[in-house]
Amino acid sequence: MSTDRLPSRSDNYSEWYNQLILRAELADYAPVRGCMVVRPYGWALWENIQAALDRRFKATGHMNAAFPIFIPKSFLEREKEHIEGFAPELAIVTIAGGEELEEPLVVRPTSETIIGHMYAKWIKSYRDLPVLINLWNNVVRWELRTKLFLRTTEFYWQEGHTAHATADEAEEETLRMLDIYADFAENEAAVPVIRGLKSDGEKFAGALRSYSIEAMMGDLRALQAGTSHNLGENFARAFNIRYLDHQNQLQYCWTTSWGLSTRFVGAIIMVHGDDRGLVLPPRLAPLQVVIVPILGSGDQRQAVESAVQRIEADLSEFRVRVDRREGVTPGFKFNEWELRGVPLRIEVGPRDVQEGSAVLVRRDTSDRKAKETVRQEGIAATVRDRLASVQRDMLERATQHRDQNTHRVGSYEEFKSVLDGKGGFLHVFWDGSAEDEDRIKEETKATIRCFPRNENGERGRCFYTGGETMRSAVFARAY
Amino acid sequence: MSTDRLPSRSDNYSEWYNQLILRAELADYAPVRGCMVVRPYGWALWENIQAALDRRFKATGHMNAAFPIFIPKSFLEREKEHIEGFAPELAIVTIAGGEELEEPLVVRPTSETIIGHMYAKWIKSYRDLPVLINLWNNVVRWELRTKLFLRTTEFYWQEGHTAHATADEAEEETLRMLDIYADFAENEAAVPVIRGLKSDGEKFAGALRSYSIEAMMGDLRALQAGTSHNLGENFARAFNIRYLDHQNQLQYCWTTSWGLSTRFVGAIIMVHGDDRGLVLPPRLAPLQVVIVPILGSGDQRQAVESAVQRIEADLSEFRVRVDRREGVTPGFKFNEWELRGVPLRIEVGPRDVQEGSAVLVRRDTSDRKAKETVRQEGIAATVRDRLASVQRDMLERATQHRDQNTHRVGSYEEFKSVLDGKGGFLHVFWDGSAEDEDRIKEETKATIRCFPRNENGERGRCFYTGGETMRSAVFARAY
Repeated sequence: MSTDRLPSRSDNYSEWYNQLILRAELADYAPVRGCMVVRPYGWALWENIQAALDRRFKATGHMNAAFPIFIPKSFLEREKEHIEGFAPELAIVTIAGGEELEEPLVVRPTSETIIGHMYAKWIKSYRDLPVLINLWNNVVRWELRTKLFLRTTEFYWQEGHTAHATADEAEEETLRMLDIYADFAENEAAVPVIRGLKSDGEKFAGALRSYSIEAMMGDLRALQAGTSHNLGENFARAFNIRYLDHQNQLQYCWTTSWGLSTRFVGAIIMVHGDDRGLVLPPRLAPLQVVIVPILGSGDQRQAVESAVQRIEADLSEFRVRVDRREGVTPGFKFNEWELRGVPLRIEVGPRDVQEGSAVLVRRDTSDRKAKETVRQEGIAATVRDRLASVQRDMLERATQHRDQNTHRVGSYEEFKSVLDGKGGFLHVFWDGSAEDEDRIKEETKATIRCFPRNENGERGRCFYTGGETMRSAVFARAY
Repeated sequence: MSTDRLPSRSDNYSEWYNQLILRAELADYAPVRGCMVVRPYGWALWENIQAALDRRFKATGHMNAAFPIFIPKSFLEREKEHIEGFAPELAIVTIAGGEELEEPLVVRPTSETIIGHMYAKWIKSYRDLPVLINLWNNVVRWELRTKLFLRTTEFYWQEGHTAHATADEAEEETLRMLDIYADFAENEAAVPVIRGLKSDGEKFAGALRSYSIEAMMGDLRALQAGTSHNLGENFARAFNIRYLDHQNQLQYCWTTSWGLSTRFVGAIIMVHGDDRGLVLPPRLAPLQVVIVPILGSGDQRQAVESAVQRIEADLSEFRVRVDRREGVTPGFKFNEWELRGVPLRIEVGPRDVQEGSAVLVRRDTSDRKAKETVRQEGIAATVRDRLASVQRDMLERATQHRDQNTHRVGSYEEFKSVLDGKGGFLHVFWDGSAEDEDRIKEETKATIRCFPRNENGERGRCFYTGGETMRSAVFARAY
């Protein structure tokens, strides 16, 4: 696993991405069209993502549960927009137990419909509300073009499903979860995001309103990295989810759903990765520190090994591995752990043993020669401090990158010229119609990523129609 | 949710089990044949089971990963016994993305085959071994008769899959994981188990040898609660999993697989539950302590609430809920939390406030009036101690129950008479053939649960053939 054959990002971003995933052993192609095998290193990253999100879900009163992977086809058909959106992507079980099924079963592409069926059964009164449930599971969408992590036939995610007594509470929940996604993205993954409303053309099939977090990748394209939907009364009406209110009147519930998937692993790769490989944020990295002993010869070997053992013991609060492999050079190990994005490397050689020191190398700084000699004594505090710096600097660097590549444009001419010249995010005022949006997409391949909240109440002229408006939009070419 | 309608175990064990699961809100029937919805309380129990096992897997060097839920049908057919065993139970996707698939996809019933395919790709040399991977996922087996948790069309489990250089290492791994299951069952779930080899008729389809842990349920029937398989070279040959050894010779790997599923939740229910409902072992219980304030009137209410808040804060190391619901009596709450099996209940009323005390009630003791008055001060230490006692006593009680209902029999006449009279586990010497085993099953519905290791080298006469043997067997009627 040497790095010399990893394509550079500027040569071929897409190949850099694919090769990096395979070579860092995050995932591999499965022998089923569009599916992936998530390998232990990739799954450990996903487990850390899960833990960081799960903490936040539980702190806001949600509990996990499990719903069947099979959904009767008729369920999907009850919400008209929902089935229109998902019909082309369904995988369908028609044979089971050696016999043709009377009603085919859909392999869930998402669970709103079966959730609706069960919530209608469970919810009787206002006392049962809100229902706050999250599922960690796998879903299947038969996609035409697939790409590891970003768009796979089967993927892993969480889908939250909540039911509320009022429209206001449902909207509040929808935005709360959007904020949780943004908080997770920025403070755990060091991925800065823009949060906002999706346009009607891009909203979830069956939702009243969809919100998303949008991140800028290393190639300046956008990635929708998490979505939160206010489903209004749509699914409640389709599945008859009703409750008796305080006045003993039957009312429809208001429901929400929200999801974040293994796609986010793709975001982490593309936001932080460089030509040497992955750069993983310390809070989510499967390994935070790798220790490479530089053994020297004879007596020195034992002394180095002893020092390494002491250091490893001192660092027990971190996720640490000592790379003791024989038959490969330290340089080979450095390259490999750089490819795999471990935030900190510690080198310990005979001279370090003599001087009670160790060499510390950060993965995230672009100058690979930026080595720092630190004391072995108190090394845990040093490592804690450096990991915090890495985490902070990664967010800052990604935010700068995003901001430097976000452009305000005032006319469609300017829009096209900036998009083709510089690329990135185009921040505009927007007063156009769904048809305008479609036309722009057709002509430029750029879409409205979201309408960020207009915090300052600014007004301006729509770059496309010229109409005055308070609505801002972020356009970009997207994954 | 009142308990008066829960059937008693002696009246109708099966209905007691079904009703208890529904009323304790562990799970519900799904609108898809044989599937279940695992509700938040049931899933929280499973999450604790997962955490307890996952810790043990990681401590023994295993890492988690994810493999696709779809497997090309041809893969299953490569190992002859494997496809024979699983063919009748397969759910098959024939349509995807609006088109008929060229090759139908099986929804995984287990993952040995797709694991085999990928391991063949990944493993090149002895340096790559052992491969120690575990998957937490969902699988589907189209069962004729289903029962919540015990046998459902879709279920949740972990499946470990390892590859080794030698037969000895594979056998060692197989037994290591069997021991981990037994350790988990006894020390986390308070479920005593017998571990042993399965007979050839009951082994996993494609295995060289299968081992299981077997537990006795409240109705004296056996439940296979976890299995560990030495797959020999069977899957390695079917999928060409080979490595270059130290002499640069290509060798087949030796593989293992091992699984424990949501079926174990059924074991916990049936081993510990009583006529009042669930009795959950403290180490796995979603809630370890429920606090019920007995508010009294006027000024007292505030004083009780303050005391409850102090106690709750003191118990932050435990999984605690304060039941502050209004409009239901304390008695109603007691019944409900007993039904749901919370190990400890703390009652705090006005008199307790005056006296700095609280009332503690254990769920596991059969005498529901066994209340203990304890000091509020230092209550965390008291709770820690009582939870440990509950955990210990539950294992002891279950072990006694199992031992009291395990009988040594010396002849087939005695076997049948004890089985019909007392039931339970029948410990015998066994020298019979597979045909003998089938005949006994047909005549008595009892099967060989496993051959426990003969630690003391005892010899005896087979109860069926009369032949002298060193092999012991445990027979029982089983789920």
